[in-house]
Amino acid sequence: MRFTSEQRLDDGVLERAFTLGEIPGTLWTSGSAPAPLILMAHNNGLPRGESRLVARARHAAAHGYAVAAIDAPGCGDRPRSAADEQDRADLRRAMRAGEPVDEIFESFIGPLVDKAVPEWRTTLDALLSLPGIGGPVGYSGWTAVGIRLAVVEPRIAAAGFFAGGYVPRAQREEARQVTIPLLFLLQWDDEGNPRQRALDLFDAFGSKEKTLHANMGGHTGTPWFEVEDGERFFGRHLK
Amino acid sequence: MRFTSEQRLDDGVLERAFTLGEIPGTLWTSGSAPAPLILMAHNNGLPRGESRLVARARHAAAHGYAVAAIDAPGCGDRPRSAADEQDRADLRRAMRAGEPVDEIFESFIGPLVDKAVPEWRTTLDALLSLPGIGGPVGYSGWTAVGIRLAVVEPRIAAAGFFAGGYVPRAQREEARQVTIPLLFLLQWDDEGNPRQRALDLFDAFGSKEKTLHANMGGHTGTPWFEVEDGERFFGRHLK
Repeated sequence: MRFTSEQRLDDGVLERAFTLGEIPGTLWTSGSAPAPLILMAHNNGLPRGESRLVARARHAAAHGYAVAAIDAPGCGDRPRSAADEQDRADLRRAMRAGEPVDEIFESFIGPLVDKAVPEWRTTLDALLSLPGIGGPVGYSGWTAVGIRLAVVEPRIAAAGFFAGGYVPRAQREEARQVTIPLLFLLQWDDEGNPRQRALDLFDAFGSKEKTLHANMGGHTGTPWFEVEDGERFFGRHLK
Repeated sequence: MRFTSEQRLDDGVLERAFTLGEIPGTLWTSGSAPAPLILMAHNNGLPRGESRLVARARHAAAHGYAVAAIDAPGCGDRPRSAADEQDRADLRRAMRAGEPVDEIFESFIGPLVDKAVPEWRTTLDALLSLPGIGGPVGYSGWTAVGIRLAVVEPRIAAAGFFAGGYVPRAQREEARQVTIPLLFLLQWDDEGNPRQRALDLFDAFGSKEKTLHANMGGHTGTPWFEVEDGERFFGRHLK
């Protein structure tokens, strides 16, 4: 893991960009005592520099967590193929037109999840070897990647998932194998995530301790207090 | 309003029993600065002295709220008729046997709500005339009474409702008229509150700002952290 830039932000958070082989990432920390780590992944490979993710990451870092995000293969700062671009355009167009997106989603997001998960595990190895970062480890964000990670990665102790209306078939089937504490956050009128499918996924998780939070509005309308609720959830399980 | 007993509890909360005409109630306070008021009502007229309600009330009082509870007509310390006792026994028996309870519920709980709501308003008048109790006012608990109060009582600024699978027809129809901020709490496998009906009720409320929290387990299994979440909700709207 090689740090390529570093800046101290006005909330006292240290923001460091890194590369780990081909993987570009960012690490947000504050203070010097060993901090529990949160892996923060944006749904469907949105860039790690996206402003809503950065705001959440900085808030958590300012409140005593180490937070890391990486760009998934073909996303953010990663090289992308013409095929990726085409898939992404097709998905956006179909969603906007209100057409069924299951098949595009399956063929595009399914492989993206398969590629992203091993990279998150590699990143986790590297992060836990840094001074000032301790366990236990939480995961926050992209539901499909989080399901797979929760199943294959015993170091993940608790997870907050967002949306979850569209999740590749493989992860829908893996949901019953997830047993860690979950906070499942959904927007009641999420234009890209059918409500009933999200509720069915919440129902399917094997975890004994799982909490659903739903708020009004569309995909990007999550109220800010859910950021604080998420940190209290991690506070119960990681601190 | 006449205070009939008073004790200082070990968490520093002052617990005072009162009577207001025929209405017996309890008021929990701490500190001397004017505190926002929470009216706390147990579902279907359970006694105000029930341990879970008392624990919630004391916690909120210790965190800066004035909290009041009353016994509904025919409930708790109130005189009850043989007909009340029979209705209650019928309802319990039908629920235990898994039989349909809509009609018993309608004929028993419907009138109970009709009688309880004016008493809550009378109590609210008396409470707000006491020194050390200020507005705004929140409501917490019994969904049907809360719906009616939110519709007819402009002093109620925010409400937390619990369960809501069975709610009399009149209040199900009034739900669209509720426009104050809501926190709607349900237990995913509540044996006495069908999940889909609770979700439909949440969907029906007219409030632009409404949040659903759902947790695993049966009716009495709500995790303690929801008490704190409820206080943060009231903190956003009453403080």
